[in-house]
Amino acid sequence: VAYFAAVDIPARADELFRSLQSQICAGLEAADGAARFVEDAWERPGGGGGLTRVLTEGALFERAGVNSSTVHGELKPDFAAQLPGDGARFFACGVSLVLHPRSPRVPTVHANFRCLQRGAALWFGGGADLTPYYPVREDVLHFHRTWKAVCDRHDPEFYPRFKAWCDRYFYLPHRRETRGVGGIFFDDLRRDPERDLAFVADAGAAFLDAYLPIVERRRGEPWGERERAFQLLRRGRYVEFNLLYDRGTTFGLKTDGRTESILMSMPPLARWEYDARFPPGSEEAALADWLRPRDWLDEPA
Amino acid sequence: VAYFAAVDIPARADELFRSLQSQICAGLEAADGAARFVEDAWERPGGGGGLTRVLTEGALFERAGVNSSTVHGELKPDFAAQLPGDGARFFACGVSLVLHPRSPRVPTVHANFRCLQRGAALWFGGGADLTPYYPVREDVLHFHRTWKAVCDRHDPEFYPRFKAWCDRYFYLPHRRETRGVGGIFFDDLRRDPERDLAFVADAGAAFLDAYLPIVERRRGEPWGERERAFQLLRRGRYVEFNLLYDRGTTFGLKTDGRTESILMSMPPLARWEYDARFPPGSEEAALADWLRPRDWLDEPA
Repeated sequence: VAYFAAVDIPARADELFRSLQSQICAGLEAADGAARFVEDAWERPGGGGGLTRVLTEGALFERAGVNSSTVHGELKPDFAAQLPGDGARFFACGVSLVLHPRSPRVPTVHANFRCLQRGAALWFGGGADLTPYYPVREDVLHFHRTWKAVCDRHDPEFYPRFKAWCDRYFYLPHRRETRGVGGIFFDDLRRDPERDLAFVADAGAAFLDAYLPIVERRRGEPWGERERAFQLLRRGRYVEFNLLYDRGTTFGLKTDGRTESILMSMPPLARWEYDARFPPGSEEAALADWLRPRDWLDEPA
Repeated sequence: VAYFAAVDIPARADELFRSLQSQICAGLEAADGAARFVEDAWERPGGGGGLTRVLTEGALFERAGVNSSTVHGELKPDFAAQLPGDGARFFACGVSLVLHPRSPRVPTVHANFRCLQRGAALWFGGGADLTPYYPVREDVLHFHRTWKAVCDRHDPEFYPRFKAWCDRYFYLPHRRETRGVGGIFFDDLRRDPERDLAFVADAGAAFLDAYLPIVERRRGEPWGERERAFQLLRRGRYVEFNLLYDRGTTFGLKTDGRTESILMSMPPLARWEYDARFPPGSEEAALADWLRPRDWLDEPA
């Protein structure tokens, strides 16, 4: 029975991620209220393919990209050496999204859930992290509390471990700051495939609950040229992280992945300014204090 | 005599690069006609420092950055292993610039000249490459002819070798295109220090001659929203190259270089669009044909 359950896992994970993609897109379209997702199905020359869904120029989102992919084939030796399992054959499926809202008052968010198989090894990875431009404490707490609740239902060690992992992963050493206020990040999760799949399914299903209440609280708040300029500058940091440090992005681009789908995480517009500084006490200067690992849920209110 | 000449080279190269920075900035200010360079002198904690000069929101340039730096100290072992010479001590000086014009009709340009010393080894590197948005054949020919003339005065093998090196270096494999129409690129030049310094001095002095005539021909040409949108999209490729592949940028950022000076090469504003396509026959679609290695000077007119 365990054997059949395990061989079934990749197909069930694949089904889960596709259905998650549909549910998330439907929820985001409803929240946007104006634009719809456009679909682009693609095939991978080495085996498999994906479905890229993009919403652009919406009322809420300047760009929202939600990708699913199911790929299989042969691993290159130098990459294979970094992975669990044995042999050159691999299978990978997942869903990944980056949402770039138009309003600087609404945070950018990223989430990704994936299942990989190589020889006898099967493992899961994923996470979600929030990148506000003008952070609000209750939003950050809501985001972290949602992930903690999901994690705690599966393993009380998950949240502290995956929260710290997120802080380490989404870090820009050359800026000495985190990408945003974190969330959870995990990789190489392989306890029992059934339990791991159940956790990932639970986490995926929590994404809209973690993000949309923040959107609803902030989307009506006023902003102008100043906030827009700051948002574009901070989006430049997002670009820096993705192209310099994000393993999914750099690995994908350097190993003949589908460029357009990988770079859907790029913001629609980003700005760089030499040595930008902000007046002490300004909202913009205050952001720095949020961009370091903090135990949000343990801090005094 | 040879001994004294050689020990003198780093100081003379340093003097050359600083004076080159002043001359180039003066020439660019004159061409811009509206904005002036702002200076920012900085020190490097490990030893040395630099002078960053930035012109922003000019009549011609949206941003022009011209850096000089003179640094020395101890090499980290993993980096030292990749370099000629012996020992941990190093000295490096150089000048580097990236100019982002406002008009999409005027090409972006980059140039860099540097001198490095480690133990008994002393070598030079540098180059210049042009990134047009709407390329014009006579401009590309002028740029390449200028560099060929400089190279030929020193060694007839330089231009073909450094031109090909430039095409290889400024290449984006994930886009299957070069960054622009090339120019020259060279590294690890160490024949005779006197002759190498003379070549680098000659090349540095040619920069304004290589670029400004192109600016003067194109700056008056009309452009609108469409050309601006295309320029911003192509600047996204510039960002991709710099953060994914440029060794100076990635090495600098990952080894505690001065972030703001390194990232002065970033464009002031850049755009990404999912799977952008242009109508066959449009000027935008035509760019692809320029972004592959071509023997500009040997093609029939």
